[in-house]
Amino acid sequence: MREYSCVHRGRAEPLDLHLAMFLPTLLNQASPEQMETFFIPAWNLDIIGTYAQTEMGHGTHLRGLETTATYDPATQEFVLNSPTITSIKWWPGGLGKTSNHAIVLAQLHTQGKCHGLHAFIVPLRSMNTHIPLPGVVVGDIGPKFGFDEVDNGYLKLENVRIPREHMLMKYAKVEADGTYVKPPSAKLTYGTMVFIRSMIVGEAGSALAKSCTIAIRYSSVRHQSEIRPGEPEPQIMDYQTQQYKLFPLLATAYAYKFVGQYMNQVYHRITGDISQGDFSELPELHALSAGLKAFTTWTASEGIEVCRMACGGHGYSRCSALPDIYVNFVATCTYEGENTVMMLQTARFLIKSYQQASAGHQLSGIVSYLNESERRLQPQSVSSRPTVVNVNDLASLVEAYKLRAAKLVEVAAKSIQQELQKRVSQEDAWNNSAIDLVRASNAHCHYVVVKLFAAKLGEIGDTGVHSVLSTLALLYALQGIQQHSGDFLQTGLLSVPQLSQVSQRLKELLAQLRPNAVALVDAFDYCDEMLNSVLGRYDGNVYEHMFEWARRSPLNKTEVHESYHKYLKPLQAKL
Amino acid sequence: MREYSCVHRGRAEPLDLHLAMFLPTLLNQASPEQMETFFIPAWNLDIIGTYAQTEMGHGTHLRGLETTATYDPATQEFVLNSPTITSIKWWPGGLGKTSNHAIVLAQLHTQGKCHGLHAFIVPLRSMNTHIPLPGVVVGDIGPKFGFDEVDNGYLKLENVRIPREHMLMKYAKVEADGTYVKPPSAKLTYGTMVFIRSMIVGEAGSALAKSCTIAIRYSSVRHQSEIRPGEPEPQIMDYQTQQYKLFPLLATAYAYKFVGQYMNQVYHRITGDISQGDFSELPELHALSAGLKAFTTWTASEGIEVCRMACGGHGYSRCSALPDIYVNFVATCTYEGENTVMMLQTARFLIKSYQQASAGHQLSGIVSYLNESERRLQPQSVSSRPTVVNVNDLASLVEAYKLRAAKLVEVAAKSIQQELQKRVSQEDAWNNSAIDLVRASNAHCHYVVVKLFAAKLGEIGDTGVHSVLSTLALLYALQGIQQHSGDFLQTGLLSVPQLSQVSQRLKELLAQLRPNAVALVDAFDYCDEMLNSVLGRYDGNVYEHMFEWARRSPLNKTEVHESYHKYLKPLQAKL
Repeated sequence: MREYSCVHRGRAEPLDLHLAMFLPTLLNQASPEQMETFFIPAWNLDIIGTYAQTEMGHGTHLRGLETTATYDPATQEFVLNSPTITSIKWWPGGLGKTSNHAIVLAQLHTQGKCHGLHAFIVPLRSMNTHIPLPGVVVGDIGPKFGFDEVDNGYLKLENVRIPREHMLMKYAKVEADGTYVKPPSAKLTYGTMVFIRSMIVGEAGSALAKSCTIAIRYSSVRHQSEIRPGEPEPQIMDYQTQQYKLFPLLATAYAYKFVGQYMNQVYHRITGDISQGDFSELPELHALSAGLKAFTTWTASEGIEVCRMACGGHGYSRCSALPDIYVNFVATCTYEGENTVMMLQTARFLIKSYQQASAGHQLSGIVSYLNESERRLQPQSVSSRPTVVNVNDLASLVEAYKLRAAKLVEVAAKSIQQELQKRVSQEDAWNNSAIDLVRASNAHCHYVVVKLFAAKLGEIGDTGVHSVLSTLALLYALQGIQQHSGDFLQTGLLSVPQLSQVSQRLKELLAQLRPNAVALVDAFDYCDEMLNSVLGRYDGNVYEHMFEWARRSPLNKTEVHESYHKYLKPLQAKL
Repeated sequence: MREYSCVHRGRAEPLDLHLAMFLPTLLNQASPEQMETFFIPAWNLDIIGTYAQTEMGHGTHLRGLETTATYDPATQEFVLNSPTITSIKWWPGGLGKTSNHAIVLAQLHTQGKCHGLHAFIVPLRSMNTHIPLPGVVVGDIGPKFGFDEVDNGYLKLENVRIPREHMLMKYAKVEADGTYVKPPSAKLTYGTMVFIRSMIVGEAGSALAKSCTIAIRYSSVRHQSEIRPGEPEPQIMDYQTQQYKLFPLLATAYAYKFVGQYMNQVYHRITGDISQGDFSELPELHALSAGLKAFTTWTASEGIEVCRMACGGHGYSRCSALPDIYVNFVATCTYEGENTVMMLQTARFLIKSYQQASAGHQLSGIVSYLNESERRLQPQSVSSRPTVVNVNDLASLVEAYKLRAAKLVEVAAKSIQQELQKRVSQEDAWNNSAIDLVRASNAHCHYVVVKLFAAKLGEIGDTGVHSVLSTLALLYALQGIQQHSGDFLQTGLLSVPQLSQVSQRLKELLAQLRPNAVALVDAFDYCDEMLNSVLGRYDGNVYEHMFEWARRSPLNKTEVHESYHKYLKPLQAKL
């Protein structure tokens, strides 16, 4: 969501949730009358809002949220409460000190019945003095791993009354007498989640692209040690181990950027359908966005750290910018749906599709391979299968990834069946197969990424660009095979000699990419102001600027730091 | 090295290098006269020292260090200089603002010849005023990922003169006329490195043990979502995916603690031999400590983040303590020898040993398996081999890890041979095989850890403890096989059906460990003050204390933060 931010490019800030959640939620869920009341003041920053969903005791599991909004027909108001300590709203950005309003998600009670989560606009602070309103206990939740500039907050509501018109009523409604009117479709709220998760996939590409830019530029500035005795110290980029760390990540950054673009396109196409009442593609997109969000954020987070450590000691300094990229990006593994939960959501869709395919249904869309595999993965002699895959041909590798995914979905489905045969409940069978389910989702997402990368190549006309991106795509596919070689061997998709071939080919691709590596990160086109990294400077003038950066350290304001007079000198006197 | 610290238990602080490097280096390398001059003042904190080795342009590659110490017989002084910007000393802890002395590593020049790196005691700041001395440009290097409390510093020396007696002269010497006297053995300085690296292995165990304590305790406090509909929300520890994240790390923490103990014992045994002039075991220990330092710090760092993310959103708050554990521990991947360089050092020893074995020499010590494997890894039918391994028997798994290591050393050695056949130089052949070499080192280290874990079980008399630790050891070994299943399949050590057995067995072990998980982290015996984690509290009273912790956030000192008056109100007025 940081792409929205207007003050510091690329950095989180207190108004992020106002811009990325409060305003869009108004747009999507406010009635025309509510738009009139709230939108212009919010646009003008008189109303500064945030989106308060997560509570201390519940995050991803939305049904567990405890905040209540009880309708009182006598006054035509909702009464909001945080009934327990765990129900205190926790984490919303800008909630602690900045916002004067929040969209609060609460369990709606009216006429003695609970109708589940609904959204309410709750004024938090006086528009004149910014002092919290009666019944509103609000504050900052304290220091975090990253997001230093954001006042993530807590909110405890004690009999806070808001007018009936403050419930967002574009879809669901509560009438003056308390009658509840259902929304036309429960799936509508999916849309926003899908949109945000597809944004995060693109962000995974960007965060990794920035990190690769820094590490690859620095690796061609830094000289160290020796390869050949007597010769000058080589650029550290010339070490095969350095190439093996960075180039697959470079390929991954390109892959995720393409996947992010694709998901954005699909989202916009599907929202067109949705606005015409066609929800048919939504479950697939929902499942895909959940899994890909998890898949890309996990690998990108790890990749940022690999980039940081590839810069040696100086990567640890905040002058490299990599520590900040990491702490801010890694939060995406947890927010907007915890990654393991996301993977299991995708798995649910895969298993359902697998069962449909097994029952003879023809599947459409990205999971249609589960039909195909039903036919192709029948037992056959192990030795005959590997010949199918050509490790030098991307299309053939896409096929291998597909069959791996199909096989692992099957393994997970069989694990569930076996558990059920032990007479455990459906739910326990699911939980007892969760490791296999996550593994299947991972394989599915990996297949989708490889497939989309390969598809992207078809859109590229320029021969030079096509050639180097083909190398990157091949590198991406082969490195994934090497990392998961067990899966490919186990399913009989590759033979042992082919795996040695993969290793050999990978080394060749690294050497082949070496001359283009800097150009490939320059092509991401991050200006120095955006990267904010001494190591990743475009001009390569690293060391002078590192010294300059260090001299500006807050501790260097005085030659003798106050701690000397305060602690050290008295301590020396005592001993 | 944080184990030394005296003020905050377990946290880095400005005096760490004084205690862990300055004093020990005096003890090891100062002559009796120098001990008399420097040790007591240093012990009394009149002299506060640090250890200045790393420069802006060189870290792990010591020969590349550029600082010079040139002997001037006219005044019987050394003249110290930082001849280039890259030669500025960079990173030493406590150098920026705290220390008034440093042991400076510099290239010794005397009588027109350079004799390589030697250590010099350099006064940096006035003992009365703490103001930097003439020619000394010293300061803090600025904010870092972690180590907030440590003033890591820079040091630029401009014709700084020190008396001849300030060169540490227990071994090498420079006489009054400038004659250089060589040390008796170049291997002596290895000792300290080995010691520190073996300490780091133990720290990897501790950092992971702390993280597991926090995550496992919190996982039994946190209730979320549902496994069986209608039942109360389960402890998140009951999810198979959560167990799969945490229990193998718990096993790893135990493993690394045992390995750390073992290395410490070996170090002390070998230093006894060294003091009697027997260096025979030093190369092996040096190689082992390099590789194990890299192996354990990489996996422990990743593991800490897995623990943090297993705590969901609250893991991201510094109240969990996990962000601080991570940023401080992950530095070990880089300092005291960058991990990839360490892995390649171990590989050098392995390849040398492999070549000796191939030439018919009988190897001793931990690499003796390279002899054995020479005989056992001869081509034989793939189908006959897997029966050797029994996946339920730890001894048999140790054997499998050994053969995997042997095989991967062989693969790396063969890659070098193949490169040499292409008529590239020895050095290029090495670099072009570096991926395989690191892989071989990893497999070697993994074998050593599994082997030592299994050996430790033999020392445990108590049946209950023996039983639960055996389960952990088996879990550790089997999870490693699952993660590296490609290696085990590729080498024909395991069959595909055996791998399915491994998956099944792993799930059983997780369920088996579930009831003991909290007891197993309690056994690490970290008190609440040491953990400093709201999530990891012994009493499990997490939510109340999280609210209390948050209310003490610096931003909550006032109800309306100054940023409102300074920025927000003027901004609102303008729009």
